[in-house]
Amino acid sequence: MSEISSLGEFGLIDALTRDFKVKNKSTKYGVGDDCAVLDYSGKEVETLVTTDMLLEGIHFDLTYVPLRHLGYKSAVVNFSDVYAMNGTPRQITVSIGVSKRFTVEHIAEFYDGVRLACEQYGVDLVGGDTSASVTGLIISITCIGEGVKGKTVMRSGARDTDLICVSGDLGAAYMGLQLLERERQASAGQKDFQPDFAGKEYIIERQLKPEARRDVIAELSTLDIHPTAMMDVSDGLSSELLHICHDSGVGCRVYEDRIPIDYQTAIMAEELNMNLVTAAMNGGEDYELLFTVPLTEHEKVQQMKTARLIGRITKPELGAYLVSRDNNEIEIKAQGWNAFTQE
Amino acid sequence: MSEISSLGEFGLIDALTRDFKVKNKSTKYGVGDDCAVLDYSGKEVETLVTTDMLLEGIHFDLTYVPLRHLGYKSAVVNFSDVYAMNGTPRQITVSIGVSKRFTVEHIAEFYDGVRLACEQYGVDLVGGDTSASVTGLIISITCIGEGVKGKTVMRSGARDTDLICVSGDLGAAYMGLQLLERERQASAGQKDFQPDFAGKEYIIERQLKPEARRDVIAELSTLDIHPTAMMDVSDGLSSELLHICHDSGVGCRVYEDRIPIDYQTAIMAEELNMNLVTAAMNGGEDYELLFTVPLTEHEKVQQMKTARLIGRITKPELGAYLVSRDNNEIEIKAQGWNAFTQE
Repeated sequence: MSEISSLGEFGLIDALTRDFKVKNKSTKYGVGDDCAVLDYSGKEVETLVTTDMLLEGIHFDLTYVPLRHLGYKSAVVNFSDVYAMNGTPRQITVSIGVSKRFTVEHIAEFYDGVRLACEQYGVDLVGGDTSASVTGLIISITCIGEGVKGKTVMRSGARDTDLICVSGDLGAAYMGLQLLERERQASAGQKDFQPDFAGKEYIIERQLKPEARRDVIAELSTLDIHPTAMMDVSDGLSSELLHICHDSGVGCRVYEDRIPIDYQTAIMAEELNMNLVTAAMNGGEDYELLFTVPLTEHEKVQQMKTARLIGRITKPELGAYLVSRDNNEIEIKAQGWNAFTQE
Repeated sequence: MSEISSLGEFGLIDALTRDFKVKNKSTKYGVGDDCAVLDYSGKEVETLVTTDMLLEGIHFDLTYVPLRHLGYKSAVVNFSDVYAMNGTPRQITVSIGVSKRFTVEHIAEFYDGVRLACEQYGVDLVGGDTSASVTGLIISITCIGEGVKGKTVMRSGARDTDLICVSGDLGAAYMGLQLLERERQASAGQKDFQPDFAGKEYIIERQLKPEARRDVIAELSTLDIHPTAMMDVSDGLSSELLHICHDSGVGCRVYEDRIPIDYQTAIMAEELNMNLVTAAMNGGEDYELLFTVPLTEHEKVQQMKTARLIGRITKPELGAYLVSRDNNEIEIKAQGWNAFTQE
């Protein structure tokens, strides 16, 4: 094991970044100068920028999150934000703060995960910062992406009568987290504890190694569908629906029986005696894409393999409601992840 | 005083960012969607990206650093990196992690400083992330800037016989830090302690509220001087000279009697019985610009008001040396700031 101080900051950056190969023409110069140099001078190109901070003890628990997965996820959640604009992620910067309990090998594992994500999604690492921290692991990632002028999709474009769609399924990452928590508690004090994840691999993977829905963006393009509004589901469907309604000045109706839920999610909710719809609406960390399309795109949307219709946009005065299976209207409230109240 | 949880994350972001006005044409959309949208589609334009992480207890001590100054400095050190490429900073993202001891008012003070820096330097805030932290204040800033194709200056372009120049003066921020440390220790346990900074305002300001040398970039442009290599002095002149020598594959000679040092820096070093040249060579946090120019630019460089000649680039086999007043050659070694060994 190598102490981080043995390499020094520049040695560490070099060791961590030398296996990242440049993949994008727009990356003129990556790690190693005061700035990375990007070139987006195509006339139809817009530059997209997003950033996320992830803190040990707040956003992740290293007792059950492998560092490699954490690296992968930290990168992917940023890519997801770029796809959510209908863009393509191209570059990231990765800054980390690490306390003394981490070795060079630990940090290399984290970067292995970042590198895998970069390879999977064709993204270049172009910079970052490394530092000691007083306590715990601190991660800050910025992703820069490319958009096509006029095709970038904001949260503010949804209009009355638009259809609401969501990709994949919801609540799985949240139920995966509950399962990991349960097994962590069960393992307390036991040396050779083997967690039981049999038949629950999907929800574990959704929590530990989520993917960004590049395939949804590709299918929208193939079918020539132009969303009016779009965002990724990171804080829970309820929270994201309210964002779109607020920013677009509209209301919505979403139908309970249309909410996509995987059977592993349902079984886990049953085992833990939790409300399944609450998990799907408020669980968070799904990284699915929520988008709206004009009513005229109805037939095209029905051909989609990666997403499904879950509701419709209404006039603002009708509010935001979930329509239950027994046809009751339940007001949608944001109960998603809030890093300040969950302390 | 308001607890941060009283606003919620989105309320907090809104409260913190609403007073930032968009200043750049290239900023199509700032805070509030999955990504900021930038447009650098001019054909001659390159996009520059730099990022810095600043951690309480490692990079700053809030017992003597006012939050407003910290906000200003956090932004400015990133602008400095963009100027060091011969570019213009245009946008920043600001992410913060805050422990429970911080109130909304504290964070607002920090953002006031960021806003002042953004106004001074014509930069737009376009995004960020806020989170609770387990302990202390965590800051991560990414700056995006604009470069002109063919005029971006890397660290790697210095050539044998080039002249070495540096702006302003060196060692002042480091001596300011020593003074603040001394007064902090003197104040321990004393309630009404008044620190004595009389006659030392310059070195205090250099530490707490540094500026980025936009004026140097402007003067280089006015005099039609094209640096072959450039970087900002953040880790100390020694460290930066070695970066340029390493990346350019050259050696250097720098002359002790040419190193620019302010008289307040010299007086403070004398008071604290510290070696002045060591402070100037290794102190760090100067945020001055170090650059090289071809020998043919000698006359133009001598006209500069913001920078001066301090040495010359040599063949690599001649190594990197400081030539002392008594004509001894002292090998330059990096002894600058290292966040991993200073723990």
